[in-house]
This record gives sequence, C-alpha cells and structure tokens, in this order.
Amino acid sequence: MAAQPTPADRFSFGLWTVGWQARDPFGDETRAPLDPVETVHKLAELGAYGVTFHDDDLIPFGSDDAARAKHISRFKDALDATGLKVPAATTNLFTHPVFKDGAFTSNDRSVRRFALRKTLRNIDLAAELGAKVYVCWGGREGSETDAAKDVHAALSRYAEAMDTLAQYTIDQGYDIRFAIEPKPNEPRGDILLPTVGHALAFINSLQHADRVGVNPEVGHEQMSNLNFVHGISQALWQGKLFHIDLNGQHGPKFDQDLVFGHGDLINAFFLVDLLEHGPLSGGPAYDGPLVFDYKPFRNEDIDGVWASAAANMRTYLLLKERAAAFRADPEVQAALDAHGVTGLAQPTLNDGESITDLLADRSAFEDFDVAAAAAKGSGAVTLDQLAIEHILNAR
Amino acid sequence: MAAQPTPADRFSFGLWTVGWQARDPFGDETRAPLDPVETVHKLAELGAYGVTFHDDDLIPFGSDDAARAKHISRFKDALDATGLKVPAATTNLFTHPVFKDGAFTSNDRSVRRFALRKTLRNIDLAAELGAKVYVCWGGREGSETDAAKDVHAALSRYAEAMDTLAQYTIDQGYDIRFAIEPKPNEPRGDILLPTVGHALAFINSLQHADRVGVNPEVGHEQMSNLNFVHGISQALWQGKLFHIDLNGQHGPKFDQDLVFGHGDLINAFFLVDLLEHGPLSGGPAYDGPLVFDYKPFRNEDIDGVWASAAANMRTYLLLKERAAAFRADPEVQAALDAHGVTGLAQPTLNDGESITDLLADRSAFEDFDVAAAAAKGSGAVTLDQLAIEHILNAR
Amino acid sequence: MAAQPTPADRFSFGLWTVGWQARDPFGDETRAPLDPVETVHKLAELGAYGVTFHDDDLIPFGSDDAARAKHISRFKDALDATGLKVPAATTNLFTHPVFKDGAFTSNDRSVRRFALRKTLRNIDLAAELGAKVYVCWGGREGSETDAAKDVHAALSRYAEAMDTLAQYTIDQGYDIRFAIEPKPNEPRGDILLPTVGHALAFINSLQHADRVGVNPEVGHEQMSNLNFVHGISQALWQGKLFHIDLNGQHGPKFDQDLVFGHGDLINAFFLVDLLEHGPLSGGPAYDGPLVFDYKPFRNEDIDGVWASAAANMRTYLLLKERAAAFRADPEVQAALDAHGVTGLAQPTLNDGESITDLLADRSAFEDFDVAAAAAKGSGAVTLDQLAIEHILNAR
Amino acid sequence: MAAQPTPADRFSFGLWTVGWQARDPFGDETRAPLDPVETVHKLAELGAYGVTFHDDDLIPFGSDDAARAKHISRFKDALDATGLKVPAATTNLFTHPVFKDGAFTSNDRSVRRFALRKTLRNIDLAAELGAKVYVCWGGREGSETDAAKDVHAALSRYAEAMDTLAQYTIDQGYDIRFAIEPKPNEPRGDILLPTVGHALAFINSLQHADRVGVNPEVGHEQMSNLNFVHGISQALWQGKLFHIDLNGQHGPKFDQDLVFGHGDLINAFFLVDLLEHGPLSGGPAYDGPLVFDYKPFRNEDIDGVWASAAANMRTYLLLKERAAAFRADPEVQAALDAHGVTGLAQPTLNDGESITDLLADRSAFEDFDVAAAAAKGSGAVTLDQLAIEHILNAR
Repeated sequence: MAAQPTPADRFSFGLWTVGWQARDPFGDETRAPLDPVETVHKLAELGAYGVTFHDDDLIPFGSDDAARAKHISRFKDALDATGLKVPAATTNLFTHPVFKDGAFTSNDRSVRRFALRKTLRNIDLAAELGAKVYVCWGGREGSETDAAKDVHAALSRYAEAMDTLAQYTIDQGYDIRFAIEPKPNEPRGDILLPTVGHALAFINSLQHADRVGVNPEVGHEQMSNLNFVHGISQALWQGKLFHIDLNGQHGPKFDQDLVFGHGDLINAFFLVDLLEHGPLSGGPAYDGPLVFDYKPFRNEDIDGVWASAAANMRTYLLLKERAAAFRADPEVQAALDAHGVTGLAQPTLNDGESITDLLADRSAFEDFDVAAAAAKGSGAVTLDQLAIEHILNAR
Repeated sequence: MAAQPTPADRFSFGLWTVGWQARDPFGDETRAPLDPVETVHKLAELGAYGVTFHDDDLIPFGSDDAARAKHISRFKDALDATGLKVPAATTNLFTHPVFKDGAFTSNDRSVRRFALRKTLRNIDLAAELGAKVYVCWGGREGSETDAAKDVHAALSRYAEAMDTLAQYTIDQGYDIRFAIEPKPNEPRGDILLPTVGHALAFINSLQHADRVGVNPEVGHEQMSNLNFVHGISQALWQGKLFHIDLNGQHGPKFDQDLVFGHGDLINAFFLVDLLEHGPLSGGPAYDGPLVFDYKPFRNEDIDGVWASAAANMRTYLLLKERAAAFRADPEVQAALDAHGVTGLAQPTLNDGESITDLLADRSAFEDFDVAAAAAKGSGAVTLDQLAIEHILNAR
Repeated sequence: MAAQPTPADRFSFGLWTVGWQARDPFGDETRAPLDPVETVHKLAELGAYGVTFHDDDLIPFGSDDAARAKHISRFKDALDATGLKVPAATTNLFTHPVFKDGAFTSNDRSVRRFALRKTLRNIDLAAELGAKVYVCWGGREGSETDAAKDVHAALSRYAEAMDTLAQYTIDQGYDIRFAIEPKPNEPRGDILLPTVGHALAFINSLQHADRVGVNPEVGHEQMSNLNFVHGISQALWQGKLFHIDLNGQHGPKFDQDLVFGHGDLINAFFLVDLLEHGPLSGGPAYDGPLVFDYKPFRNEDIDGVWASAAANMRTYLLLKERAAAFRADPEVQAALDAHGVTGLAQPTLNDGESITDLLADRSAFEDFDVAAAAAKGSGAVTLDQLAIEHILNAR
Repeated sequence: MAAQPTPADRFSFGLWTVGWQARDPFGDETRAPLDPVETVHKLAELGAYGVTFHDDDLIPFGSDDAARAKHISRFKDALDATGLKVPAATTNLFTHPVFKDGAFTSNDRSVRRFALRKTLRNIDLAAELGAKVYVCWGGREGSETDAAKDVHAALSRYAEAMDTLAQYTIDQGYDIRFAIEPKPNEPRGDILLPTVGHALAFINSLQHADRVGVNPEVGHEQMSNLNFVHGISQALWQGKLFHIDLNGQHGPKFDQDLVFGHGDLINAFFLVDLLEHGPLSGGPAYDGPLVFDYKPFRNEDIDGVWASAAANMRTYLLLKERAAAFRADPEVQAALDAHGVTGLAQPTLNDGESITDLLADRSAFEDFDVAAAAAKGSGAVTLDQLAIEHILNAR
C-alpha cells in the first residue's frame, strides 16, 4: 500500500485542472465552475503541497481593480488557512480572442504590447504570492499556414518578450525564474518552440538565458511521439529543468491531459526513477515541484474530479516505490555494471589524453578487434524485463 | 518549362542515395551495386554540382591501405574529369554490427574510441577533397529501453566526441565546419538529438559551439510531424543552418526518403521560398549546397534511379519558379503588409523605450481597445490560398 | 483560370462550417453567430449547390415546437429563394453534456433511448427537406479507458441503433440512405469505428446493410496517417461511398478541418482524380454531393470566413482541371499501360482456368523466370513525377 | 511469482522472430543464422506450445526438391522429438525482389500467378504439418504513389487470390482457415488493408468469407495509433479473430516488434484481460494460439535472443495474473455495475418494443430529464485507477 501524499511530496495542481469545466471542441461544459478557494481547501485535504494559476483563473479577464483585489485576498486567505504554497504562476495569453493570432508574436504589434503588460502585472502578483517560477506557455504563438507568419521574425519578438520579462524581475529584485513550456500544436496548427529541444535552443539565444529554463509536459512531447525521459535527461544535462508538468497521453493525437501514468506507464516509471534518483550512472535528480497538469475526464462529475486528483498523486507514489525497489535490486545493479550502462559516465579519452595520443593508440583502431566487440550482447532486454517486473511488482 | 539544372543550382547527391541497392527490413536488394565513378559521371551529366559520401560508400569497411588509396584515386579522377565538387562528407557509424549500441555513445568504451578514430581518418579525406562541411548523423546513438542507456551520460560522451573532432580540425587548420543531423528514431527506438531543436540546444553546450551547426533533413522532422519550415526558420535564426538534406515523407512512419516535393508539396514550396528568398519580412537566405538525401523506390530499375535523381532537381526548380512568382505578386505583397506579416519584424518596444515607459503607456493596457483588436481578421486564408494558387500555377 | 463554381459542381457546406464561432479547447469564440438564412443566401451567391445541417444547427437544443417550426420555415424560405438543396442532414449527438459518455452506446440506457428519439425526429425533417443521405457521426461513441467501456457490447448497441433507424426509413417510405462517418479520436480518446475500414466492416453486420454506407472525411483518415485515396478506393470497391467530406489536415494531431487541398495537396489531387474519373484502370466514379466539412481559421473575421468557403471550391476546381489534363496526357496513358497499372484490371487466372489448370502451368512456377521478372522497373517515379508536374501545371 | 510457461498456455513463436539476424535498413546482420531445428528444441525447453513459419524460413527460396524434402524432414523430426505443434503457417511474399511491386496485386500478372503457386505449395505443407490457420500478410501489396497503383483493381485481384486459396483448401479437404494480417505501411509507403477494420471489411466481400478471418498484430494497429483492444473487440464481435500476433510498439514510427508488454503496458493488460475473460459484460474469449511476433533487439547476442523469448511469455503470464485479480476484485465488479459498464449489454429497445412504441414513450424524450442524466458521473477514472493499481500489483 503506497503512502498517502503529504506536502513533503511537493505535489502541486493548477487551478485550471480540477477546475476545468469540460468544454471541448465538440461539446459544452459538463461541470459547474469551481471556486478557487474551494479548490485550495480540497487540494490541501488530499495532501497536495501547492497550487498554481493563470491570472485569469483567479481573476476573470477584465475585472476592475476592486474585484481583482477581492479575488486575490480570498485566495490568500485560503492559502494561509491551509498552508498550501504557490510554487509557480503563469499568464493566460490564449483564451481571449485578442490573442487569436498570438501574444508575444502576434502580427498585431498592439497585441504584443498588451500581452507584455498583462504578463508584467501577473508577475507582480506571482512575486507577492511567493512563486519562484513563472511559466510561459505560448499556446497561440504559431500558425496554420507559412504564408501568414514569419517564424524568423516571430522568434525575435519572442526573445524580445522573454528578455523584457526577465529584465523586469531583475529590476524589481524578484527571486523568480522563467520556465518555457513547449508544445508542438493545438490550439495552433504549429506552435513555436514545439519541443523541449527547440525551447532549450531558443533560451540559449536570450540575453538573460540564465534566468530562463523549461517546463516540459509529459503529453506535449508524446504528442510528437518523442521519448519524454530522453527530453528530461537533456533538460537536466543542460541544467534547465526548472519545472515539470506531469500527465498522460496516448501518442500523436489531440492533447489528452490524462492522469499521470494513465498513458505510457513504462515511460512514467522511468521518469519517476530519473526525477527521484537521477541518471543511472549518477548525476542530478530533480527537487522542484511536481505539478499535475491534467484534465479530469469530461464525463466525470465533481466526485470524479477529486478522485482523479488523488489518482495522480497515488500513481506517482506507487511508481516511486517501484523505482526505489528497482534501484535497490542487486540484480539490476549488476546488470547495469556488466553491460556498461554505468560505465558510460567514463570519458572516452583517458585523463590527459591528447588527440595525438589517441591517434597513436593502435589498440583503438588498427589493432582493435572489431568482430569481438561486435559480438557482445547489450543486456538490454534483460534490463528492460527487470524494469517491467518491478513495475508489475513481480519481484 | 523549368530550366535544366546546372552546377550553379548547387544540387548535390550522396553516393548512398542513387547507389542504394534497395535492401529493406523485409526484403533483399533489388539492384546491383553502383560504381562511385559511374555515379559521379552520371550526376554531372544530369546537371548536379556536387557529391557527398560516407567513408564506407567509397572505401568498403576493412579495406587495406592500398585498396583504400585506389578507391580514392579513382574517385578523384572522376571528380577532376567532371568538375563535380565534394561540398561535404560524413562517416558511416551505423552499418557495421560493432556500432549496434551506438558509436560516440556506445556503452562499450572501446567502440567509442574506435568511432572517434574512424571519423578522424575520414575528416582527413574530407579535407583533402575540399569539403567544407562534415555531417554527423548519429543513427545508432540511442536506445530501445531507458533501462539500458543513460541519456545524461550519453550526451556528455556525445559532446566530448564533437569537441574532440572540432579541436582536431582546428589543430589541423582544416576549413571545415560540422553539421549534426537530427532524427527521432529508426534505426534505434529513440535516437538522441531527435529534432532540429534538440541538436541546436546540444550544440550550445559544446566548447567549440561556433564550429558546429545542423544538417536538417525534411523527412526526419516530418517523422515527428513537425513543420520543417519552422525548424529551418529557427536554425537560420540561430545562425546554424550549415547544410540541408532535401527529400519527402508522408508523416510519422518509417523513414521514406521520397523524392523532394513528393511528400508534403505545400511545405516544400514554403521551404524553397525560405531558402531562396529568406524570411517574409527580411533576413538571411541559404546559399549552401542543396543535397538530395533520398532513396529511389525499391521497385525501380537503374533507369528509374536516374529518373528519380532528375525528378528531385526538376521539382526543386519548378518550386523555385513558383516561389519567385509568389514573391513578385503585388497582391501577395499587399496582403503581407496589410495583415502585419511583414510588420512582425518591428520590435514590440519602441526604440529606446524602457520597461517603465511601457508600464506608463496607458494605450498599451488600460486604454487598449481589446474588442477592436480581437475583431480584426488575420488574412491568413487569403494568403494561404494565394500560395496554393501559385503552387498550382493558377495565377 | 479556373471556372467559377456553379450548382452543377454539386458543392455543399454544413451550416456548422462557416457558422463555426471558433471556440476551441483553449479559447473563447472569436466570431458572432451566423444566421442560417444568411448562410444559405451567401453560399448560393458563391456558387454552392447545397447545404447540410445538424438538427441543433438549425433549431437550438431544447427549442419548443413553435420556435422549432419558425426556424424550419425561415430556412425553407431561404432554400426556396436561392434554389439551394439539402442533399444530406445529420444529428448532433455530441455537444450537449447528456451525450458525454456516448449516445447510441452510452452506458446509460436512458441516454441511448433519448439519442434514438432525437435522431428519429430529425430524420423526419431531413425527409421533408428532400435529403437523400443521413449522416451519422458518432463522435461521443468511444472511451478514454478500456476499464469503463465494453466495446463488444457497444458495437451491439450501435448496430441496434443503426438498424432501428434504417427500419424507420423503410417503414416511413423515406428515400434516405445512411452514411457513417468514421473518426479515430477527438473528442473521445478513442472513437468506435475509427476508420473507413472499421465502418465498412461494421456495416456488413447490420440487418439493413444495404441502406448504410460511409461518409469518409479527408482529415479523419489522415489523423491516423492513412492514405485517404486508398480508403476511398476501398469504399468505392465495396459500393459504399454514399457521401464524402472534403477538407485538409496535417497528419496525426488534433482535427484541423483545414480548407480542402490546404493539407496534403498531392493526395487531394489524386482524390479529385479518382472522384471525377474513377480508378486508373476503369471503374466507378463518384457522382454524389461534394461536401466541405472544414473550419475557417479561428483568427479570421467574417470576410475570411467567406474567403475560405470560396477557397475550398476554387481549389477543388483547379485540381479538377489538373486531373483532367493528367488523364488526357498521352505520355501518362502510355506509362500507365507500359508499367501494368491499367493491366491490373485483368484477372490473375485465365478465363475459365481452374486451380488444377494453374497448378499444371509450368510457366507460372517451375519455369518462371524469377530473375527476369524481378529485374523489371515499375515506372512508379516517372508516373509520380508526371502527376507532380500536372499539379504544378508545368506540362 | 508467475507460473512458468507450459504448452497449456498455447504460446507460439515464428521461426523468423528468434531467428532474425538483425539486419535493418541501416545495418548489417549482427547474429548468425539459427537452425530451425535448434529453435524448435529451444522453444520447447522454454515452455512454448507451438512454432510457425514462412515457407522460406524453413526452405530457402529456390531450393530444389531434394533439399526441400530434407529441410522438412529435419523439421518434422524436431517437432516429433519435442511435441511442439505447428498451429499456423504462412508464405513469404515479400523478401525476394520479384515481389517488389506486390504479390497477389503486383502490376505484373506473371508475378501474381507465381505468388499464387508459391502459396498453394506451402498450404500443402501447412496441412501436412497439421496447421489449422494459414496467415496472409500482404506486406508488398501497396504503393508509394497513387499514380502507379490502382487500388480498386488491386482489391479485386486480392479478393481473387484469397478466394482461389480458400477454394483450394475446400477442394483438398484441408481443415484450414485463413487469417489476413493488416498493417498500415512498411515496407510499402501504404499497404492495402491497413487496419483490422479494412481487413474485416474486405473479407465480407469474398465469396468464401466464412473461411477467412484476421490475424491482428499489436504493433501494426499501434503504428496508426489505434487502440488495439478496440480492434480486437470488433474482430471478436464479428466472429473473425482467427489468430493473434503479440508484441510491443511505441506508437507511429517504424515497426519495432518489441517484446509483448514492453510498449503500451496498460493496453497490453486490457488485451490479456479481454483474450482471457472476454468482454466486461460477457461474450466470447479467445482460445486460439498466442503468437509472439517480435524481434529481439539488434544489439542482443544469442543469450539475449532466448532471454527475450522468455520475457514475452513471462510478461503475458504476469498480466494474466493481474487481469484475474482485476476481474475477481469485488470493488471492480461493483464499479462496473454501478456505472453501467455491464449494463451496456442490455438492448436499448425493450423486448418486443416497436419503433412506434419507442416514439410513444414520452419518458424517452418529451419527459426525459436531460439535466439529471447529464449530471451523472461516469466512474471512468475510478475504474481506470483500479486497473492501474492491479497492473502495479498495489491492491
């Protein structure tokens, strides 16, 4: 039996997840609105650590200052009452029709300016609520036809926006870092920065690259049928895993936002293993918030909503148990060593070896026994099956 | 009628393309081997500019020094006779069983060293033949299960290898740059650096980042259903489009390597438009070699092979004509301007505007007419249809 | 220059296409509602032949009888005034929350009965308006987890529903046939009858199989990366192409509903060629309505909506011109004959040949020159390039 | 601990699976040939029930009669010695270049006749060895361009071939049924009968439809991102699940042929549940052979080959244990009943209810409480999580 979730597990939910009213492209909403205050109390009760929000989740678009203040104050009271934290926040730059052609990269410059202002305002609130990460998902930054969007120019505008926001946090002395969330498509036909890789590359071109990392989401990478664990490995390798969104997806189709683990269960196991234990041959683990960015099924009622929130946390904890057993299994460790998996941490060149030295090493080429090296088995299926059996709790 | 290809068009082919004997996962070869010398002569005759090769295309794996010298000498004679250039070269680190678990990132360190040596040797030949680009496709750098490959460590080994190779070209005074070719999968279940984005991000972490760019291939990005034109736009934006592989693909399935344009024709049109004219609102075009990395259908005979080589060039030239007409069409230019497509080049902040200034600009937020901005049409379908009609030569 | 569309072209539009208010999973509507009467007039003006509708497009869900009658009467007046026809109609069994777990296959039997009644009522209206086809898209018939839907039982309920509806048309003497529209997913994680193939197979198990065919949609098959032309060929082969929905899609992602031809242009060309001319070696063409089931981009205003409606028809007509030229090209016909494409219509056994005869024919096996047959080229790339050049209007 | 496999588990392997020499599109073979006799002995030792084969797996293409007889005789001796059965057999109509444009649907009529003869000969052998199922995978029946293959005519030739083969088994009095194996692509760009649905539909058009069913393969449906459990449900519903191929796949990419369960583990669980227990609300289970049609990783040696064979069986047995516990869990059964999952077996119309009766039932429509029905939760996430926890062996 897995332990119950506690705040020490660092589980966090977006207001928009359990609060999703289940309107989809072909159907009207099936659930009533959820008061953010109720959400905070309920999440705390279920054992969560934190809650995140878009500005418009908390304060309806177009609210006047008085209404805004009241929404914020009620929310803070609930946080105080429950001890729930706000590890991160974000801006809604996609729901309102004004962003229909993009926000930071809209072809309409006045929309670009408006988007910056909307974001700056919510960064102030994020700082006030103690958020350390500001997530940027550019869901409308993209196109349906290459005839109507100059991606080269759009990337320049995107960079201008990110650097402006980063500069603002420096100017204000905010202890906030940015996390860009990649997605390949939906709602746009093609979205800019479609994968973890594209976002990491883009960040490197920023003036304030050090303040910006990524917020990968399981399902977004899987919509391109990419291996999420590989993407997270690269983000960790580049020191840029600032935040993470956990959910499930069944491959290249619309964004399903399933409960974590309810899509590709094996990949979810290796993800938890990586986040909790770091790479197989050693290296950094992840100690930030674990955010469930999912949608309760549209055919659930409110009981199903809370059951699904609990299911995310419980599945994570079960996989955490399975991963711990996998790492502690001597047979696993022996196989990792025997087949060179852990040995990959060793540099290819000897300590202090120059290229000239390498060229002079006949054992590396002229006298290398190619046939013998080619004949060695990788042990991969044995390791794979060990992992499967740990997932199935069969060892 | 499109012009016939000439060397001025910078078209290049890999020896392995027309030379593919058409062995596939379910079938034996259907065509006889093609002598590289014959290929050089035939390509020149068809109007190509260049030819590229893997070491093993020219010199069978395991050849002794005398045989090697003879293969090289015959090839050089053919180049001299025809005037064909070698704009690029690459290493075969995937066919031989010794690379079955990877080359630069094999779990077997002796294989990693062998791969470095094999590559270094061919870089010498590339330099000798005048190549300016050295392509690196890590087709075996990857895994089928996350239990048997530590991707974090693998990226360190990959970086070590790339920096070693780059250092070697510096040491030798070679005027050669490297171009990493991304691919998401096949032959490995998941390949490292699966997209243009991942490769660009990886490159930024190299010590010799300035010597390394990307060699994107149309079909490789489309295997992840990514928009190739977007990827190329980002590569150009980051100044890293060192080389390009042109072909066709029908979405996420095995690597088809179709004739250029015979997959997604609309995307091919916008690609040619971008390569030839640069971004819609201005910016760098591409002036490197245009390499067709395709496979003639397995059910073709040698006549079909040469017909397919010609089809690549002819389709490119036809699309080049269509793109020139698109750019020259006053209605297109008017629509690009009217709908803000070209306006995206203008920075979002005014010249010299500070964040404080932006925050003080009430027209940007408090007094912004959201409804009016939201109501404006994008003109995207009009531009899209103009492009389609130019493709169809209907204007 | 392509001819302007006229009713003789049999182009038809759904009310829900141009009338889509552009609400998507991440955004609010960007356009005002469109009065069906205005739509009818505008479509007629643009040269369309027909208009189709879901019950709820015309008569808002829950309207009382008087309101219903008025909506219908206004619509009929518009049809009379313009001469527009109603070649088909359909039921909305997906928007209202009551259908959140399915309609004909809901786990709630009372919903199944309600769905039947809702459909029967609209069939009466369809008959009254002269529709000859009744489309059934079971967008909510599906599941997100196999734990909560018994697909075997669901297919029985689906068949019960289709046979009940078919029986009703027989009882009423309606000259109406049904057309099932397959789709693999969205809005459900997996939808029953996901492809043209599954729908054709299901139909064969119906008691009233003769009254039921398919309504394939370009994008729905392409969401599974299937070749739409192949699917239509099989539907024609089985005599079941009762209706067709034309649009565009960029492979496996959310349902894009692009303008026809604006996705996979080459496949669109071969589709028009097949619909207009029948199979390459002879056989049935399609003479039913050509329905554009697309969505104008969300970032378009009402001018863009009508521009996109016109773009569908114009692209079809241009491809029709290109296909006619392809078929009329003597070089094409010669290549089709030379390479056996048209010869495939000839049976493999001789007229009257028994299996015993075949077994006795040594030329078919024992004396068959395998090597010679294996060496023959297919001519496929030549034919492919001829088609591409006709698309590009370059011959 | 899962039971060891025994022949009672009906596990079977193709000779081509463990015998795959690991040649792939980018690499040479990494393993030595495996003698079929050795395979038979080893499979028996591991606990398998049966072995299947293509003609050319057993008897190299082009063997003379004496060699053929010897190969068969050695194989039979091994079967006799081990007790292994041959539940099924099939024809290789894809490896030899002569089939490069198809076999039963080649544009070359002489190839079509040769393919029929090759198949007829191997059916005799299949009958002699006691096979009850003859599998037909038309891996080369397809195309890369719609310009060079008339799919309509091809389906006629395909049907002619299947009916000829079926007629032959009737003439010969063979107790053999045919099972068509669908696949969407690879090695052809598009393969005819791409999914379970298309194959089922095609079969219905055959003269001898009763002798022909399907042989679905996990990975083949998942290459189109279709839910395999849904496909199997439809095949069972249509009474056509004659055979099944078990393996694993990571979505739309090249055909991976992973070990069963090593791809989508959740879907594998529901598959085993369905095969062993039948539909959730009752209906037919599957009692035929369980065939592993997979490929050992290319980087494995012969030890890895046998480890992977064992991994297939062990994973199946573990999932069988998990499914049995799922079905026996009273909480699961209660949830299935409470949420109408089992209730879907009940017809929508009452026993004897006419359409007139339904139309007269005001409770079904006029008085139906739509809002109340819309408000009910589906219980889907609760059932889903119960299944996940059974997979994880956490209950």
